[in-house]
Amino acid sequence: MAKLPAMLSLRHLLMLSLAVNVSLILRMVYEGEREGTNKNMEGYNRIIQKSRLVIPSTSFANSTRKDRSGGMDNVINLDQGDPTMYGRFWRQMGDRTTIIIPGWQSISYFSDPTSICWFLEPEFAKEVVRLHNVVGNAVTEGRHIVVGTGSSQLILAALYALSNHDAPQPISVVSAIPYYSSYPSMADYQKSGLYKWAGDAYTFDKDGPYIEMVTSPNNPDGHTRQSVVNRNQGLLVHDLAYYWPQYTPISFASDYDLTLFTVSKSTGHAGMRIGWALVKDREIAKKMTKFIELNTIGVSKDSQLRAAKVLKTVSDSCEEENSQGGQESFFKYSYKMMEQRWKLLRAAVDSGDLFSLPEFSSGFCNFLNQESKTQPAFAWLKCEGDIEDCESFLRGHKILTRSGKQFGASPKYVRISMLDTDDNFMQFIDRLSIIQN
Amino acid sequence: MAKLPAMLSLRHLLMLSLAVNVSLILRMVYEGEREGTNKNMEGYNRIIQKSRLVIPSTSFANSTRKDRSGGMDNVINLDQGDPTMYGRFWRQMGDRTTIIIPGWQSISYFSDPTSICWFLEPEFAKEVVRLHNVVGNAVTEGRHIVVGTGSSQLILAALYALSNHDAPQPISVVSAIPYYSSYPSMADYQKSGLYKWAGDAYTFDKDGPYIEMVTSPNNPDGHTRQSVVNRNQGLLVHDLAYYWPQYTPISFASDYDLTLFTVSKSTGHAGMRIGWALVKDREIAKKMTKFIELNTIGVSKDSQLRAAKVLKTVSDSCEEENSQGGQESFFKYSYKMMEQRWKLLRAAVDSGDLFSLPEFSSGFCNFLNQESKTQPAFAWLKCEGDIEDCESFLRGHKILTRSGKQFGASPKYVRISMLDTDDNFMQFIDRLSIIQN
Repeated sequence: MAKLPAMLSLRHLLMLSLAVNVSLILRMVYEGEREGTNKNMEGYNRIIQKSRLVIPSTSFANSTRKDRSGGMDNVINLDQGDPTMYGRFWRQMGDRTTIIIPGWQSISYFSDPTSICWFLEPEFAKEVVRLHNVVGNAVTEGRHIVVGTGSSQLILAALYALSNHDAPQPISVVSAIPYYSSYPSMADYQKSGLYKWAGDAYTFDKDGPYIEMVTSPNNPDGHTRQSVVNRNQGLLVHDLAYYWPQYTPISFASDYDLTLFTVSKSTGHAGMRIGWALVKDREIAKKMTKFIELNTIGVSKDSQLRAAKVLKTVSDSCEEENSQGGQESFFKYSYKMMEQRWKLLRAAVDSGDLFSLPEFSSGFCNFLNQESKTQPAFAWLKCEGDIEDCESFLRGHKILTRSGKQFGASPKYVRISMLDTDDNFMQFIDRLSIIQN
Repeated sequence: MAKLPAMLSLRHLLMLSLAVNVSLILRMVYEGEREGTNKNMEGYNRIIQKSRLVIPSTSFANSTRKDRSGGMDNVINLDQGDPTMYGRFWRQMGDRTTIIIPGWQSISYFSDPTSICWFLEPEFAKEVVRLHNVVGNAVTEGRHIVVGTGSSQLILAALYALSNHDAPQPISVVSAIPYYSSYPSMADYQKSGLYKWAGDAYTFDKDGPYIEMVTSPNNPDGHTRQSVVNRNQGLLVHDLAYYWPQYTPISFASDYDLTLFTVSKSTGHAGMRIGWALVKDREIAKKMTKFIELNTIGVSKDSQLRAAKVLKTVSDSCEEENSQGGQESFFKYSYKMMEQRWKLLRAAVDSGDLFSLPEFSSGFCNFLNQESKTQPAFAWLKCEGDIEDCESFLRGHKILTRSGKQFGASPKYVRISMLDTDDNFMQFIDRLSIIQN
């Protein structure tokens, strides 16, 4: 105390302390709502550091396996493509994507009664256009935007809108094997007289009109796709849920008649249930809107407003990255995460002879402005040798995956989600290595 | 300054001021995000005060017509049942129902993987049960709750779940005339082989299984209803969207196999798109969940969380009303609003001979603990005398309504929303009086 300047008495210090206390109390109030975040963040930062520790540059096997919990006892569910991986990024963004909705908002059914899609929130539409312009993955000019309760509802809306309601027979719906496992049941669960699942597009040979679902990059195998039937009465639905820089090089701006996107796979907010369609033809957009009107009388406004804020933050992060001192953009961050995960997976698969993975060529990504890799949201894993039923084999090791059979392919294949939590993913990598050794 | 205690010097004051400054700065940061809310509130409070001025206690006709804008020129759209009337109550509740959703929430598809309805938010389910217990309008014990994107999706889910998927013919779907205008198109728009609209329940005479939609109080005419076919292969769906104290006396707790409710009509939050089903049979609940999984892979979590908060506030308002100094509950407030509107409407209708309205008997309401009136969310207005097409007649006076034909009834009837904004409703009353005089 003797070293303090003479003008500072104990009373001064007390006052100073009081001032600090006041500010601390207020800061506590201010921080109160973010407490959960910070606590979670600590845990997540530990995980990040931990994951980095276990990410080898060449080989993974045996490195720090014993550090991680779980062992062989717990079930690892990688059947669904639940994009929980992205939670970490959004936690790091703190309050930037927090949304506050007062009780009197979203009372009305209507968002914009003058728009074709009268339940589309203008703010959401604006951010969809902006994000596509920033990323360069889709042409939005001259397109009608239709919002849906996830892209699932938009797939059904597209089938409804593209079918001829006066036709005596339902229109055939096809997709090339291996196709998204839900297409057959989505097309047939209502036993609709408008459209009907007709299986693999490669072997489709029926005359007359048809709808081809083109998923690119493809779910489950990650490959870039084109339509395969190519007859003049074909109607195409391009499901581009995974056409984002973290999964595949953005080599061109898609410019199709009817294209589907979803926040579930782009930003990871699956629980929002928000997807959107870019539709060239005004009448098709009107029919899709009619479908959603009859199906659910519109789409949650709360989630649309929240999605608008999330998309805005993603676009902002891309633009800020280029400015001095800007944080890493959402896509660069996600690209690196996917890159790490695929490295780990390939290392684990290469440590033995039981499994194999598809190979992808890299390409120039106009968005990242670099040569970038294809690193799909799902791993299309093949069991080699005598293992005929890969799903059962992995289930025996308490790893839940989706059998190739469900995608119209061989049971030697399984689809594995690459978007789960760090913890689940690392346990999966561990277990894959253990199985092989 | 001379009056300050001697121990406080200028330097002390500066320090104190600094402390205050720090606290002010922090408070400003803390309050920053809420500023928009408060600004909106000022504007809204002015509107509230203005609206109160124009609501007379007994009779409306000619009273303050000249105070209101619009005249005969603007179109008054009362076709849809857009429940914007409730906005005023929610504005008055200020921040009580404001919800804050951080960016990392609702990432996963799942809410509770162990529940039959795996996308049902537990907090929402809890508040549904609580509200029914508080109001006494439905038995929740032994029921499975299935959440839907509005009750529309649940109607479709119920048709899917109740139909026999192996039957050679679709099951008949009926409802007594006048029925909800959307039932026919909802049942038939997919040309489903599972179920098919079969019209008026009163004249239905086909053998075999059928589904009867029982809407009570009924949309459009407000009458209490029972099933009318009453054969042993009948499956009933009770659509109780309007079985709330503001619309009808709560005389018993509903106890059916499959009952539907929605926030759109109970609390007025149509834009949320949240409804719920109370389902006795576990297998039916599972099939309904499967339908929603195939249709939209779940229901917006954001809206479920928000709906939970709104329902909680409604239940709280009911419980607080009985305590000393408690505000009027949501239902008492809404009951009074509906009472005023129906008084105004009846006065306008009674001022001439062109129109008539249904009469309702009152009954004892267990919730309000008083004799209470039936005051439906829609007016089922009849044009008397030579006017054969009431919808066209009113359209000629720039009042948009829904024709009786759409409800399977005579075009002499129209359905008119009673839940629109104060301004629209008052202009409608004005115009009705002008037409008759």
